[in-house]
This record gives sequence, C-alpha cells and structure tokens, in this order.
Amino acid sequence: MPLGQRAGDKSDSRYCGVEVLDFPAGDGLPAVLSHSLSSAFDFLLAPLVDPEYRPTPGAVLPVAASDLILSPSQWSSHIVGKISEWIDLDSEDEQLRLDSELTLKQEIAWASHLSLQACVLPPPRRSTCANYARVVNNILQGLTNMQLWLRIPLEKKESMDEDHVITDIVDSWEWWNSFRLLCEHSSQLYVALDILSSLPSMNSLGRWFGEPVRAAILQTDAFLTNARGYPCLSKRHQTLLTGFFNHSVQVIISGRSNHNDSQVSEGVLGSDENHTEDAHTRHALSPYLDYIAYLYQRIDPLPEQERFEINYRDFLQSPLQPLMDNLEAQTYETFEKDTVKYTQYQRAIAKALVDKVPDNEVPTTRTVLMVVGAGRGPLVRASLQAGEETGRKLKVYAVEKNPNAVITLHSLIKLEGWESMVTIISSDMRCWDAPEKADILVSELLGSFGDNELSPECLDGAQRFLKPDGISIPSSYTSFIQPVTASKLHNDIKAHKDIAHFETAYVVKLHRVARLAPPQEVFSFSHPNFSPKATNERYTKLQFELPQDTGSCLVHGFAGYFDAVLYKDVHLGIEPNTCTPNMFSWFPIFFPLRKPIYVPSESPIDVHFWRCCAATKVWYEWALMAPSPSPIHNSNGRSYWVGL
Amino acid sequence: MPLGQRAGDKSDSRYCGVEVLDFPAGDGLPAVLSHSLSSAFDFLLAPLVDPEYRPTPGAVLPVAASDLILSPSQWSSHIVGKISEWIDLDSEDEQLRLDSELTLKQEIAWASHLSLQACVLPPPRRSTCANYARVVNNILQGLTNMQLWLRIPLEKKESMDEDHVITDIVDSWEWWNSFRLLCEHSSQLYVALDILSSLPSMNSLGRWFGEPVRAAILQTDAFLTNARGYPCLSKRHQTLLTGFFNHSVQVIISGRSNHNDSQVSEGVLGSDENHTEDAHTRHALSPYLDYIAYLYQRIDPLPEQERFEINYRDFLQSPLQPLMDNLEAQTYETFEKDTVKYTQYQRAIAKALVDKVPDNEVPTTRTVLMVVGAGRGPLVRASLQAGEETGRKLKVYAVEKNPNAVITLHSLIKLEGWESMVTIISSDMRCWDAPEKADILVSELLGSFGDNELSPECLDGAQRFLKPDGISIPSSYTSFIQPVTASKLHNDIKAHKDIAHFETAYVVKLHRVARLAPPQEVFSFSHPNFSPKATNERYTKLQFELPQDTGSCLVHGFAGYFDAVLYKDVHLGIEPNTCTPNMFSWFPIFFPLRKPIYVPSESPIDVHFWRCCAATKVWYEWALMAPSPSPIHNSNGRSYWVGL
Repeated sequence: MPLGQRAGDKSDSRYCGVEVLDFPAGDGLPAVLSHSLSSAFDFLLAPLVDPEYRPTPGAVLPVAASDLILSPSQWSSHIVGKISEWIDLDSEDEQLRLDSELTLKQEIAWASHLSLQACVLPPPRRSTCANYARVVNNILQGLTNMQLWLRIPLEKKESMDEDHVITDIVDSWEWWNSFRLLCEHSSQLYVALDILSSLPSMNSLGRWFGEPVRAAILQTDAFLTNARGYPCLSKRHQTLLTGFFNHSVQVIISGRSNHNDSQVSEGVLGSDENHTEDAHTRHALSPYLDYIAYLYQRIDPLPEQERFEINYRDFLQSPLQPLMDNLEAQTYETFEKDTVKYTQYQRAIAKALVDKVPDNEVPTTRTVLMVVGAGRGPLVRASLQAGEETGRKLKVYAVEKNPNAVITLHSLIKLEGWESMVTIISSDMRCWDAPEKADILVSELLGSFGDNELSPECLDGAQRFLKPDGISIPSSYTSFIQPVTASKLHNDIKAHKDIAHFETAYVVKLHRVARLAPPQEVFSFSHPNFSPKATNERYTKLQFELPQDTGSCLVHGFAGYFDAVLYKDVHLGIEPNTCTPNMFSWFPIFFPLRKPIYVPSESPIDVHFWRCCAATKVWYEWALMAPSPSPIHNSNGRSYWVGL
Repeated sequence: MPLGQRAGDKSDSRYCGVEVLDFPAGDGLPAVLSHSLSSAFDFLLAPLVDPEYRPTPGAVLPVAASDLILSPSQWSSHIVGKISEWIDLDSEDEQLRLDSELTLKQEIAWASHLSLQACVLPPPRRSTCANYARVVNNILQGLTNMQLWLRIPLEKKESMDEDHVITDIVDSWEWWNSFRLLCEHSSQLYVALDILSSLPSMNSLGRWFGEPVRAAILQTDAFLTNARGYPCLSKRHQTLLTGFFNHSVQVIISGRSNHNDSQVSEGVLGSDENHTEDAHTRHALSPYLDYIAYLYQRIDPLPEQERFEINYRDFLQSPLQPLMDNLEAQTYETFEKDTVKYTQYQRAIAKALVDKVPDNEVPTTRTVLMVVGAGRGPLVRASLQAGEETGRKLKVYAVEKNPNAVITLHSLIKLEGWESMVTIISSDMRCWDAPEKADILVSELLGSFGDNELSPECLDGAQRFLKPDGISIPSSYTSFIQPVTASKLHNDIKAHKDIAHFETAYVVKLHRVARLAPPQEVFSFSHPNFSPKATNERYTKLQFELPQDTGSCLVHGFAGYFDAVLYKDVHLGIEPNTCTPNMFSWFPIFFPLRKPIYVPSESPIDVHFWRCCAATKVWYEWALMAPSPSPIHNSNGRSYWVGL
C-alpha cells in the first residue's frame, strides 16, 4: 500500500519495504510476506538462501522458498532478494573467497530464475574490494533485467589526533566509487544506502543525489523517540528523507523494534503464544512505517510546473537549431504559453520607451521598434502592450525568416487590427535592407546557454539598422556553468557507444543531479556592439572549489544556464540563484565529459571553455585541466555545432 | 651524409640535422642548405616564415623561400620546418593570442603545401598550455602526413627552502603530458627534446624512452671542451645520446659555435670576407657534428640476435593458441633453432637422470621418460643426448597431438635410428591412456607469460601417468610484470578503435618502452601437483613503487615475462634480471590499459591480476586500484582468452 497519495508523484518512492532479518526457515516466507503486506508494507527485502549454506558439490541450494511457493507476480513485485551477508570476496582466506564467489553466483542465478527485479549485495567489507567488484562485474555482463543494489552504509568520518589534524577519513562514497569504476558504470548497478543514527554533513550527503541510489535502508536505531513514546526522526534525517522522496528513492525499514507498539490489538495479544506471526498481529515495525508515511504525506505537493515537466526529468534533448531549421507550429505554441517571459519583455520595453521618449515629447514622437525573430508574434504583442501602457506611439517592424510563421503573423495582425502599426518583413534579419533605422531592437534568440542559438551572430547582423543611440533588448546576456554528478545522464549518453554523443551539449531538465559548486560566469555578450574589433569568439578559464566538507566526488559534466539583462534592472534567466520564477521556456544545458573525472577532496576543478566561430558554424570546445587534463572535447566542432 | 655505418641500423638516428637560427632573408635558404649538406649535415631545422610577420588582412606570407626555390624532394628530405617562436597561444594578451593562432595555422598550412615531413612547434611557455594544445589539436585533425614535433626542454628541477623541503618542481615532462592528453595521444604528435648543459637524473630521463621522441636538439652550450680544445660531451650526455641512437632519435645541433675550428682551410679564410657562407667554408658547427659522428661510430654494433629481431620491435602479435590450433611447420622450424633452450633442457634432464639412477643401478635400470608435446622432436633429441651424456638408459614416449608434427616425428626417428628407444604416441596428453607410468615428464608448453599457453592445464592432464615420485621438467614456473610507458604500443592498439584490442595481451619485442619499476612475481605453478584441492585459478595483488627521482609518468600497461625452473638450479626465462642469454623463443607479453594512467611522483601503482578458468577457456582479467581504479579489463574473458 503506497505511503500516501501525492499529486503528480508516480515514482517508486511511494513504496516502503521492510527487511527480513532472520532466515524464514521451513517455508515461512509466505507468512512473513502476507503479514508485512497486511501491515501496509509494499515489499520485503528478504534472504533467498540459508545463510548457513556453504557450497558443497552436489548439494541442493537451501532456498527460503521454492518458486512454486509464491506466485511469479509475488516474487517480482514484492520480493527484493538479499544476498547472504557472510559472503566476503576480498578475504585473505582463499577458501572463504572461493566459497563466496560460488555462492554469490548461485544466489544471483536463483534470483534471476525467480525474475526478481533486484537483489541487494552486502556492503564491501573493506576499502579495497577489487575481487568483489570483479565478480559482480562478471555477473552484470550476463544479467538481462535484474538490478543489483550495492548496500553502502551512509557514513563519512574523520579521525583526528590531539592537535585536531585529520589522520584518517572513512568515506563510504569512496567504496561505491571504486566499485562502480571497476564495474565500468554499469547501468544495472545501483546503491542501497544504509541510513544510520548519525549523518554526514549536508554537502557530503548532496553527492548522493547524482548517484543511482534506489533505496534508503532506514535502521530503527536511527529513530528518536518523541514525547509520546513514538519513533520519529531528527530534522536532518527528515530533510534527507524528503530529498529521497523527491528523487524516487524507496525507503526500506530495517532492524529490531526499539519502540513498544501500544496499538497492538489486545484481543490478539492473548492468543496462542506460538503463533506470533499471526496475520492479525500488527507488525513490530508498523510504528516506524506510520511515521514514514506521515513524513511522505507531509511534503509539499509538486508545483504545477514541476508536474508538467516531470516526464522531461533527466531526458536528454538535442538543442534547437532555429537558424538552420524552421521551428514547427507546436514548438511556437509551447513557448508562447510562457507568460512570465513576455511579461518581463513588456516591462523592459516599457522602461526603454519611457527613457527614449520624455513625457513632453510623447505627442510628437513615434518610436521605431523592430522585433527581429518575431515568430508568430508574441513579442509584437508585448511591444504594443508596452506602448499602450506607457502612452508611447510605436511603429513596429516584425522581421521573421520562417515563411510559415510569417503566414500566422499576417493573420494575427489582421485579427487584432494592428495593420497601421505593424509592418511584417519576411526576411532573415542578417540580410534585410531596412528602409529606416530603429530606436529599439527587440529579440528573443536565446538558448539555454545564452548565446548557443547564435543570438550574437544574428544581432551583429541586425544592428546595422539600429540607430547609434538605439537600444537592444536584451542588452546583454551571460552563460554560467557548474560541475555536477549525473550518473543517469552519463549512462544514457554512454548507451550510444560513440564519442560524438559525449561531445554534444544537451538540453535537459536536470533532476537526479548533484550540483557540486556554485555556478560561475562563462561568456558574456552585449548589444549593440559597434566596435570594429568585436568578435564572438570567446575563451574562458574557470576554477571551481568544492565546499571543504563535500569529500571526494565524481564529475560527469557541467550544467549550463544563462541570465539575460533585458533592459536595466529587468532580467530574465535560468541561473539557479537568480532565475525568473515560473518560467518554463528553457531547461538547463548539459556539457558531458567523455570520461567522468574523480575529484579528490579539496582539489579544485579547472575547466576551459571556448566558443569558436567559422564561416558556416559556431561551436564550443571544452577541456578539464585539473585535477587532470582531459582530451579537448568537440575539436573543430566535429561532434556538435550550431549552423549559421 | 649519415653519421656512420652501423651494421643493422636502418633507423633515422643515422641522420644529423642543424638548426638555422637566423631567418634566411632574401632567398638565402638554398645557400644555407647546400652549405650544410656539403658539411655533412643531413637536414635543416629552418624557419619558414619571417619572424617579424604579424597577420595582416590581405598580406602575403613573407616566407623564407617559395616552393620553387628548392625541389620537392629537397623540401621533403632536407627541411624540417621551424614554427615561429614568438607564437604564444596562452598569452593573457588577447591580440597576441589571436595573432598567434592565425600565424600558427598559416605556417602549418604552408609547410603542408611544401610536403614537409615534420614541423617543430615552439615549446609551451608556461605549465598551462590549454589553448596552445587546443589549436594544435584542431590542426592535427586535418593533417594527413606531416608530423608535428613539440619542442620540450629536457629539464626537471626541484626548488628547496632552507630546510631542504621541496617547494616547487619544474618537470617539463608534465608539460608534454598535459599537451598530449589534451590532444588525445595523437599519433602525429611527437617530441623534440632540447638537450641542455645539465641533465636530470637517469630515472627521470628513462621515462622519455617510452615517449614518441623524434629528435634531440643538442645545444652547443651543452658541450664541454676537451684538452685539445675540441667540443665533447659529459659521460651522462654520452650515455643519453647512446640511448637516443638506439631508439631511432635524430640529433639536431643548435646554437652558436663556442669552439674555434682550427681545421678551417686556410686558403678560404683569406678570401672575400663578405662571402662567409661560401660552399667551401667549413660549417661553424662542424666540430660538433664530428664529435656526434664519433659517438655514433663508437657504439657497439647490434648483436646478431638484435639484428634478427629488429623488424619485430614494438610490433604487436597475438599470442599463439597452440592447444586450439596446430602449429605450422614454419613455426616449428623457427623455434627449433633456439639451441640455448634445448641445451638447458638437456642439462636439466641429465641432472634428473643422475638423481633418479645412482651409478650402481645404471646397468639394471631403464628410465621411462615421456616428452609431452613432442612437436617435431627437439626435446626427444635433448633427452636422448642427456641419456647418452650420463650413460643412463632411456625408454622414451613422444606424445604429440598435432598429426602433422607426428608425421615428421616418424621420419626423424627412422632417420636417426631411434626406433628401439622411442615410441611415438599420436594423442592429446590430456586423454592418452598410458601403458605404463613415467619417471620423468618433459614438456615445453610455456608462453611468454609462463602459464598463458595452458601448460598448467596440460600438465594436470599428463601427471596421471607420472609416478608418485616422478619428476616434471619444468618443475615450476612463475610469471612477472612491470609497469611501462609505451606510447607507440598504445597508439597501435588505439588504431583499432575498439575496447577488445585494449583487453588483449600481445607478444611483442619491447623496444620504445620505459620500464618504470623492477618486475614482480604474479602467478606460480609447480608440477606435479597431486593435491585434490589444487586449482589453476589465481589472484594476485601487486604494488609497484617507482624510484623517487623518476617524477610523474604515464603508464600504458604492463610488460610480462616468465621464469621457469627446469630442474633444481637449471632455469630458463625472459625475466630481464635473470633471463637466459641468447635465447630467442619468447618475446615479452604486453597487457595494455584501456586508458593510460597518470601516476603522480611517488605514488604507488596497485594492480590486480586474475587467472580465470572455465570449461572451455582460460583468461586473465586485470585492473588498477591505485593511483585510481580502472575498469576490470577483459571481464569474463570477453575480449581475449586461450581455448582449452
């Protein structure tokens, strides 16, 4: 039974499991399952094989229950397999190591036979787990559907000597990182985090949101007791759980009950004492489940925009090529719905009109305003509304290169009765021969990374018909990047099995991503720019310092954003710290790294970005210099470019 | 004119060039060239474009000489282009940076037009050379034949404070490493090393022998003066140059003459003073060339075995699969020529016979000796000779699975009249049903890595017919590995553009390789091994520590060897420290890394090797754990295995 109903949440985080600690001997598994399900748990994390078993030639595997004891759908929907915890593949004891390898393979083969969705692997026992990783990697090569969740205790501890010098760091993220590097970022390898009573710092926890965490195994020892004797969690644990709920991570409750359950029905208490697993008995861990359900139901519902965008989460899209290709009606339709964006434009245009035309000149002045890239007309409408709002008279030219959009523009103007105010020009702004010069040039040619849809090149062409004291709206824009952990995106790109996809920037609604350092500015452009030496090539070196308490991390690439100054204090953008609320026209951009880079704790990340221009195309190149040099990505724009 | 005649040396190191320091204005290049060639230099390192030039729209490139001034073959055989040294692509001065980019591209384009074989790029000016590398990388993408040689001063210096704590390290290898990583190990990018008067430690110099060094530019300042006033080099410089001569590195002499040349012919000295470049004038740097030629002629001629193997240098071969495939006559022919190997076998067999049969039992004892894998009979011969030498009587069974070799065996025995002593068995030793048990089992089933041709599996099968106190020759063998820099091998593997070739071990005559640490033992096998728990699976973890003065380096993979104990103190092997002299049956093996790993100075290298066995195949897996984890190579033997 799901933890609750939360509008828009269709993710697995609605489901809560319980770990079966003791091996259910003598076909006890169906009883445990039905008791747990009737107590509102959704699934079991259950041992599949008697932990006393050691491989013996000819022996039959002593399983918890044969495949006939539960139905196929029960096995696959309600059981996550728990691999025997005695397994130790990096033991110095060769016999134990060989027994472990054989047993692990047998148990996984059995779980596959049962069509389980996932098995939980016991945590690595020491920091060097090469042989464990090797055997799991071997197994992963042959798995078709089943996932393996590597159990990792969520801990990061520093030992200090008497002078408070750090002498040793235990950071379980490092175990995970070694393991998945050895397993080549297998897309079937996930993490199950054991949540303990103490938690590392928020910055170090944040790393996990970019990792493939499938389950949070919440230990009963991690709970506190509230005034009424019920289990509850610390504020920091609550925050972490909210994060998990928002990132499709399922909770599994584990451990012995530390809290008496006063709600146990009295009638049953007096019954047959040998029958403790009676289906009518309330589950010993129910109070913990109740609390988790309470937390789940308490979190804010998804905002409408989030719900609208939920299917785009972590879905990689190629950026538009609006200059080379003509947009489709559907694309215009979507973007025109972004009222916030056009409101900002209207405010900026209004301010510019007031600055351009003092009150005393209003009756005698008609401002020439050109909308370049008018599309189906939303900026024409915003301009006219700004004129009306400020009482300034306008002469508007609407320049649009897409002949299909021009057709719509003509009908719009007729429909609205704007014929006297608006002239439609069916032309590319870069080659239009304007009959007069403009006071104000309005455009919206921005991509997720600001200049990536070639706004600079277009406006360089259009500023020919802007008066020397004319205003460009936007007047400037700046791109930003920040390093991220994004294992999901990395694996999706890797699936293409080529280099070109790792040298392409993607538009993507970032979700399962750890943002590791605040964004920094990359490239800036100002308009108009009449300098004869002006170039749209750029070269920027950035250094990112991660918060000291983050620990080490893996960087899969860089998230990119933009912020545009439309006019004076009116801006528009998606840079997380200053983003315009409720605007949905732009998702972030993602620049991947061909090989994810390990960043040791407190090491800076040095990255270089180039914007390169040639006769027919514009492209970016990027490279890491620290912690170690990467290849130059997208050399000569060989993999990704924007056509002029 | 080559530096001298050295038997077997067909490499470029026979040729010596000279650097042209001043721009040869006014078509002076042909005169400089003819003067240098007549002075016994082989080629010029010459500027192609006036260094005063800065890009100007519409300007004609002020070249040293148009393509018509020299013949096409003169351009390509005698001129290495020197790119202008003012070029600074990482300047903070944007104008200089943009001018540099344009000029570099123009000069390379001009050099390509002239069909030069190579151009020398000026050294990076600072440790961060990202933009320089980016532009060179762009150029490399479009180059078809020409090589680019990046000039790097050969230096490694440590600055210390008053407490002798190292505060700063300048290691020019790091510049090269960053540059080539940014350029993705381009196979057209090489190094030209500037040799200065002081040299770094031998361990740090050794790294360069695994790097693609094409030229050593020897500065006249690096020369000393001998008692007679002539230039000479320090012992360490001489050793380095000998290394270069042996690794196909060409010398280029550069700088102003610091030595008077008493051999200048007097008649010319008195001639027209304005005509200093007269063809009859001896070249100012001739004394340096004479000394280099003297060094070249003084080095030892190549040993016969080296000359025989010269075409195999750094040539990757797939290891034999003698179990799955039958060897060809040509292969037997080659291996049978290795007399050293069979002499060692004869010595070992003789010792074993003497131990087995005390002198007093000689008349009554006939020792049963089985040669398993008899091939065309060389070990049969060695056995019979050992019997003769020690006076021990033998009954020999020659077991061979290759029916073609068996045919040859039959004729050999008839030819030699061995019919009474030798019984030929046409069978796989793993399934032969022997009529009696053997006292001595002789085999030679070893690969370059010892067990890699499945000697353990074959002898496990054969030991069924060895007496409990019987002797196996060999009695044991051990494999060894050591980390190496081997950029040539890496690039050859990379050319296949797949992962499988990076997960394959190769047999290769290692030449342009830097051996970074002494070899260590990997796997050992002893025969016979009658333990019921015996397995041929192995797992070994090794840690390599590089000498402290090496500095950082790049590891492309591991060189592998073996050593076998034939009997008691008679051994056979290719492990460099103990290798059997003049034996040519085995080249080393090479285990590549999919991605070369940067090893910071004084960091250990942790590598894990597995030998894995399944029903039909045996394979290795390997992975790095430190300095950082690599993927598990060859998981499940997916790329490389040996068939049973």
